[in-house]
Amino acid sequence: MLRSKTLNSPYLITQESAQYYECSYSCDHALVLVCGNEKFFITDGRYDIEARECVKSDVEVIKSQNLIESLSDIVQKHKINSLIFDPLSVSVADCKKMNALLPYVEFKEKENFHQELRKIKTQEEIEKIRISQCLNKEAFSRFGIFLKECLGKSEKELHFLSKQFLTNAGQYDLSFDPIFALNGNGAKAHALPCSESFLHCRDWILFDAGVKYERYCSDMTRCALMGEEVDFFTYPKIENLHFQRIYDVVQEAKEYTIEHIKEGMKAKEIDALARAIIEKRGYGQYFTHSTGHGIGLDIHELPRISPKSEEVIIEGMVFSIEPGIYLANEIGVRLEDLVVIKNGRAEIL
Amino acid sequence: MLRSKTLNSPYLITQESAQYYECSYSCDHALVLVCGNEKFFITDGRYDIEARECVKSDVEVIKSQNLIESLSDIVQKHKINSLIFDPLSVSVADCKKMNALLPYVEFKEKENFHQELRKIKTQEEIEKIRISQCLNKEAFSRFGIFLKECLGKSEKELHFLSKQFLTNAGQYDLSFDPIFALNGNGAKAHALPCSESFLHCRDWILFDAGVKYERYCSDMTRCALMGEEVDFFTYPKIENLHFQRIYDVVQEAKEYTIEHIKEGMKAKEIDALARAIIEKRGYGQYFTHSTGHGIGLDIHELPRISPKSEEVIIEGMVFSIEPGIYLANEIGVRLEDLVVIKNGRAEIL
Repeated sequence: MLRSKTLNSPYLITQESAQYYECSYSCDHALVLVCGNEKFFITDGRYDIEARECVKSDVEVIKSQNLIESLSDIVQKHKINSLIFDPLSVSVADCKKMNALLPYVEFKEKENFHQELRKIKTQEEIEKIRISQCLNKEAFSRFGIFLKECLGKSEKELHFLSKQFLTNAGQYDLSFDPIFALNGNGAKAHALPCSESFLHCRDWILFDAGVKYERYCSDMTRCALMGEEVDFFTYPKIENLHFQRIYDVVQEAKEYTIEHIKEGMKAKEIDALARAIIEKRGYGQYFTHSTGHGIGLDIHELPRISPKSEEVIIEGMVFSIEPGIYLANEIGVRLEDLVVIKNGRAEIL
Repeated sequence: MLRSKTLNSPYLITQESAQYYECSYSCDHALVLVCGNEKFFITDGRYDIEARECVKSDVEVIKSQNLIESLSDIVQKHKINSLIFDPLSVSVADCKKMNALLPYVEFKEKENFHQELRKIKTQEEIEKIRISQCLNKEAFSRFGIFLKECLGKSEKELHFLSKQFLTNAGQYDLSFDPIFALNGNGAKAHALPCSESFLHCRDWILFDAGVKYERYCSDMTRCALMGEEVDFFTYPKIENLHFQRIYDVVQEAKEYTIEHIKEGMKAKEIDALARAIIEKRGYGQYFTHSTGHGIGLDIHELPRISPKSEEVIIEGMVFSIEPGIYLANEIGVRLEDLVVIKNGRAEIL
């Protein structure tokens, strides 16, 4: 399936992932204007040299001390009379400046328009995400082996040490700051690592992490018991039967959901698959977030797999399935895989 | 000197540093409403538990699936009829939603209003920044000793390894992703680490890094020659006389500027002090950025020490002085210290 890779009307980009997608380079202070076959990468003196070295051949780099003024000059020179932008990623202040400098230009607001362009992945993109998740899984395995020797270390230190495995000593970037949480701390769905919580035998470990491969993100969550072995990929046997039940329910919700995903469903129907299992087992109120999110150059992309999302799921979409149950001060269990829609069904990456 | 710590009118906060300043907690999906003595921290189910544990006693945490709707409910309940917000940190989309839900509320745009509140530091804040910079200097020293043994390692690996020293194995957060650049790569003022650039004897090293202590940032840049010793705090003796001259000019610009800062000057006059030295020595066109920036909870705060900044410098302000000269593909030299205005002059932190 071919992806619609561009829009007919000129558009303005601010977010780094979109910059990278269009230009093969990004930085934290740039505007990108795409106008037919012409692309302009407007940035300041700090990034100018690197931008010229890295951008694709169809991109012109403009060095600027005032990005919006330079944008305005190009828009006027090219007689652009309408410009699409994402109102989610342009500030009220910048929008006012653009309107003031370009009073005759029609600014068209399109929420998430660039994520829309990117939501169906090419085969090449899917392979990059697959490799990214493969590197991620290897890091989980190596980190698990290392953890056996980490009794007494703090959550905070282990959170730090996990990055050595994830990045392979700096070789790969992280797709987000990993979550390493023990016991009840895992019930905070996005827990900060704690310096006063130390790893003990039989502790419950929640680990949520991802790396980047050629800028494409991976994302996985696993739970394990601290013991002589720490294997994030083996089904755990837990003494506390209530905790075992919770794990079983989350695992069931993940597997059932992935098995029952079909092309043509709405995203909210996928969310409902996971939620129904957890509700039926009596833990509905403890599943406090959406079932998943799209992933690609950004860690969170379209489609959102949430109770309200009307998005129709189609071939080439890549997203996470990550049900969870969180009992405050007791335990957090979340299990997360990435899937791609292929031949009408979900394939785990 | 007392800081004006709040505004008389109700205000809305989105940025994490401002959230933390007001509530002692922050996360990446929250709105904070400050209304006289009442503060509301509105966030979703992922952060709810942690927020309740961490916020100050005068803050009410509101769990919400739609932050702007919850904000709107509170504004209506408390009969708030005007609300200050920062147009630099609120998106066009969120602003529209607020206007639609609260048509009778007057929204007042004030750029950087919260950084304005924080731009004069208390003694306690200055001490935190001083400790932060002290930890940072220690990391520079220890990393320098380690570098002696790193011949042949790539920039990318050394960039990663630097974080072990900066964070003290995970104990401290970074105030930004450090810059570790060799030779010509240092001429890109915000260089990405390169995996094909390896450390050789007599290489020129530029290292720009900072850590956080109790959330307060530090920031320092030093340059050194790779040799049997790598000491970021000793004046280097460089065989290449042109490079030696460039280093001397940047050092002179930094020292001269810090010596001549006086309370009551405008920020642009401070920028001009550094720029004049570099211009007089013939390198004006190679000093491609501002002379410095304020620092605190954010790595970049007010005052900006730039050629256009009319800000008047007063007691208690903390900012960087960081002149630089960048010759593309040859060398980059930047030297950076933090200063606090005390008794009318700049004291190095």
